[in-house]
Amino acid sequence: MTDAPLSRRAETIVAVAPFQRLSAFMNGPFRRLANQPDALDFTFGNPHEPPLPAYVDALRENLTPRDDQWFAYKWSEPEAQDAAAASLRRWLDIPFAPEDILMTTGGFSAIALALKLVADPGDEAIFNLPPWFAYEGIVVEAGLVPVKVRLDPAAFDLDLDAIAAAITPRTRVVIVNTPNNPTGRIYPEATLRALAQLLDGASARHGRRIYLLSDEAYNRIVFDGARFQSPIAYYPPTLLAYSYGKTLLAPGQRVGYLALSPDLPERAALRDAAFFLQPSIGFIYPNALLQHALARLEKLSIDIADLQRKRDWMVGALRDMGYRVRSPEGTFYLFPESPIPDDRAFVDRLAERGVLVMPGWLFETPGHFRICLTANDAMIERSLPAFAAAIEEVRRG
Amino acid sequence: MTDAPLSRRAETIVAVAPFQRLSAFMNGPFRRLANQPDALDFTFGNPHEPPLPAYVDALRENLTPRDDQWFAYKWSEPEAQDAAAASLRRWLDIPFAPEDILMTTGGFSAIALALKLVADPGDEAIFNLPPWFAYEGIVVEAGLVPVKVRLDPAAFDLDLDAIAAAITPRTRVVIVNTPNNPTGRIYPEATLRALAQLLDGASARHGRRIYLLSDEAYNRIVFDGARFQSPIAYYPPTLLAYSYGKTLLAPGQRVGYLALSPDLPERAALRDAAFFLQPSIGFIYPNALLQHALARLEKLSIDIADLQRKRDWMVGALRDMGYRVRSPEGTFYLFPESPIPDDRAFVDRLAERGVLVMPGWLFETPGHFRICLTANDAMIERSLPAFAAAIEEVRRG
Repeated sequence: MTDAPLSRRAETIVAVAPFQRLSAFMNGPFRRLANQPDALDFTFGNPHEPPLPAYVDALRENLTPRDDQWFAYKWSEPEAQDAAAASLRRWLDIPFAPEDILMTTGGFSAIALALKLVADPGDEAIFNLPPWFAYEGIVVEAGLVPVKVRLDPAAFDLDLDAIAAAITPRTRVVIVNTPNNPTGRIYPEATLRALAQLLDGASARHGRRIYLLSDEAYNRIVFDGARFQSPIAYYPPTLLAYSYGKTLLAPGQRVGYLALSPDLPERAALRDAAFFLQPSIGFIYPNALLQHALARLEKLSIDIADLQRKRDWMVGALRDMGYRVRSPEGTFYLFPESPIPDDRAFVDRLAERGVLVMPGWLFETPGHFRICLTANDAMIERSLPAFAAAIEEVRRG
Repeated sequence: MTDAPLSRRAETIVAVAPFQRLSAFMNGPFRRLANQPDALDFTFGNPHEPPLPAYVDALRENLTPRDDQWFAYKWSEPEAQDAAAASLRRWLDIPFAPEDILMTTGGFSAIALALKLVADPGDEAIFNLPPWFAYEGIVVEAGLVPVKVRLDPAAFDLDLDAIAAAITPRTRVVIVNTPNNPTGRIYPEATLRALAQLLDGASARHGRRIYLLSDEAYNRIVFDGARFQSPIAYYPPTLLAYSYGKTLLAPGQRVGYLALSPDLPERAALRDAAFFLQPSIGFIYPNALLQHALARLEKLSIDIADLQRKRDWMVGALRDMGYRVRSPEGTFYLFPESPIPDDRAFVDRLAERGVLVMPGWLFETPGHFRICLTANDAMIERSLPAFAAAIEEVRRG
């Protein structure tokens, strides 16, 4: 047998740039250092403090079966949908209906479901650079053509002219991530209103609705008392993807949803199709236990004020050292400029000093690097001399 | 905007025959009766007795975090892979390697992953009728062409001549389910050896490997001391899909795997591709909690002897009433002949008497109906007069 064992689809997914780069990164110094006990790992959005006790309690309380069907097949469970819809109504002041909350195993599957519900192979999906590293793989797995538009590099705002220029008759979905990973930017209301107008115009011009996919995994992780604005408030054909993995800092427990606007006329057709599409994709419904616990999980969050304190600490310290870094409005990332143009080389220098961060190269945005603020205080404390020494070394030439 | 909101892909999946039929079935008498407290629901493979106390204990024990990373991102976790590989080695006497166990959120996603790893849109996937109701949706979602072959109607054995006749140059996967849902048949070693020979020959003739996808969700639910034989023992290009949902009777908790044979030369390429394909499909890895608990879950099972007792009880009682029914060798289903050719009409008559079963029509195999043996003793006891009255009514004409 001389034929290729892998499907072309699998080969194509392995070859997408963010995955190739992630592979290279994970097989570099990261591989040797990440598992060392004294590693200062600021890479993935993983916890570095014990899980929230209330999180463990919420699961424990819902582990004791209350009926024979406790661990029976679960689709989108009404109690979970109720809890999520009530929370969205409070947060966004939009009358979401429980049946329009499609429960998923987190953000990955909410995004995959959204794309597959409305877009067909050959359709184009636009997303912005720097992107979440998984977008391109999910887009390609759905058979769609990824179209990349760079954020305005000055403020990391959406570049609406560039989005408008990227739209073609094949454009079916535009993905927007706010608060943004890795830039920490929250797109302002005026931008979201202008985006809605742009998409309405382009949809009408091409005679085919362009959907907005709003990835809002960080919508509760906002600083300085900011109020998060969802694009769904301004553009009803928005599919809102949410994951509890960030707010609860438990990304290995898989629960999230895709929410449809009450102002979306086709929402019944979409949710009816999801009933058979979700099993066919891989039964992408959350576990029984997580669905039982959802009403309690909805009320929990990591300590945002403490995250803001860490943000201020690190931004202040890095600026004092001479780094150029914006103070993020939300998420748990800093995205400083690399003191040398070659961000991979700079990240390697930090790794030599025991500090692991991600190069902007991973996000197709060279000249920057990403620091994850889920690090604990001891890690931050110990990392600062390394950050200082690395920029000092650049200064000395 | 006058265009269709749904993708053609979503419309196609909703329209596949098993889903259309399942919809019609669930919107019939089932809808009214299934949620009534005195319902005698023998339809889905759901529990009708409290969950195994040891199952709840295994989860509770692993809920207490042992480190900061307890609920961090999890891929295929080495401890879970070790436990699953050790178990497979014991069961099948084949030296499976831990790294060749790709952990998934149950059977649906193990099957989706297998298809997508090796097959491309336009390729053909053969499966047998009666099938598991989800095959066609998963095959179509993967962009593959479903090709259906009827089991030998006498003994519900694989019809190897029919499979051979269905193979074309586009055939990439043949799906076999043993022990079989709904027939309860375990395919004998001689059949599996002949199937391997057939597939080797056809692969060589067409110059392209035909993979076998062995759906073994019921491989530990076998009766009369039978020893289960996996096709992977006879045909190394077999992708073995397993779900813990049946053995633990907790189908709402999602955990399973896709296993690759140690004799498969391309297994490194397949597992490397899975590392990016699984996230792109929708991060189809089991929850952190279930992976932590897997070594304990591996040791647990529903009471197979008790299931065999229920099998013997119901088969005996139904035969005494005049039903023609085979005694299943495994799984938790009976698949009797309908006393009238129109199995849907007969199932409706049982529903009128408060007993819910599934018509063979749902499995593209009219003239039969499926009874699920996960029913408890009280349900069986109360159902028998209804089964008796229904066949008596047929006899009286």
